[in-house]
Amino acid sequence: MELALAEARAAAKRGEVPVGAVLVRDGKVLAQAGNRTRELNDPTAHAEILVIRAGCASLDDERLTGCDLYVTLEPCTMCAAAISFARIRRLYYGAQDIKGGGVENGARFFAQPTCHHTPEVYSGFREQEAEVILKEFFRARRI
Amino acid sequence: MELALAEARAAAKRGEVPVGAVLVRDGKVLAQAGNRTRELNDPTAHAEILVIRAGCASLDDERLTGCDLYVTLEPCTMCAAAISFARIRRLYYGAQDIKGGGVENGARFFAQPTCHHTPEVYSGFREQEAEVILKEFFRARRI
Repeated sequence: MELALAEARAAAKRGEVPVGAVLVRDGKVLAQAGNRTRELNDPTAHAEILVIRAGCASLDDERLTGCDLYVTLEPCTMCAAAISFARIRRLYYGAQDIKGGGVENGARFFAQPTCHHTPEVYSGFREQEAEVILKEFFRARRI
Repeated sequence: MELALAEARAAAKRGEVPVGAVLVRDGKVLAQAGNRTRELNDPTAHAEILVIRAGCASLDDERLTGCDLYVTLEPCTMCAAAISFARIRRLYYGAQDIKGGGVENGARFFAQPTCHHTPEVYSGFREQEAEVILKEFFRARRI
């Protein structure tokens, strides 16, 4: 989660909503990324989607069986569904996202009958640090 | 929708789940794609995501304001959320997807409080043709 927080801070410096994600397999980092929606002009370029795509590319497989994902913020509904499609084993995340989350909030995708693979979910990791990064980013943008 | 059906048929020939999508702006086709998850080893490479990414790249914008999307099958939850993020104006789709859809089924993403842009949604276009393409594909794979 330390690496994911560093990716979130790096995203903030690029003017992106500061969310970071790290994909791990067998104790090794397979991919790490921060949000790049503005830089790439791609509304799907959330940190989670970027590490899923990079991880699949490096494994040459459309499934990430046995891989665990660390994210600083509760994944949105798009990312929750992508995590399920990729067959990620465990999801660890930091802060909750009441306005945009899709795991504990809103669509609660993993609890839907249309969700066909549910990862183990653990939340609240380094929650306060993840929240501070987001709050400082949005406070600075409002000035 | 004719073009989207052609993309679905082309996807089937490549061994991909046959779904096709076309993105239109001001009466012109901005992007068209079929599902390529297997070919690209990318679980996010649904037809809708591919045309959203291609459309954003061609407009050099992370929003597809004023664009309409034609898809042969009800978008899944991941794609529904991406459609919302991309600010697509109207969504036209063919067959319903009871097992995996995220618009009329399952998460019903556009009706969630975490959905901050809802396109106009029209369904049932060329529904039977879209269903036949899917049914024939899965029947052939079971043999």
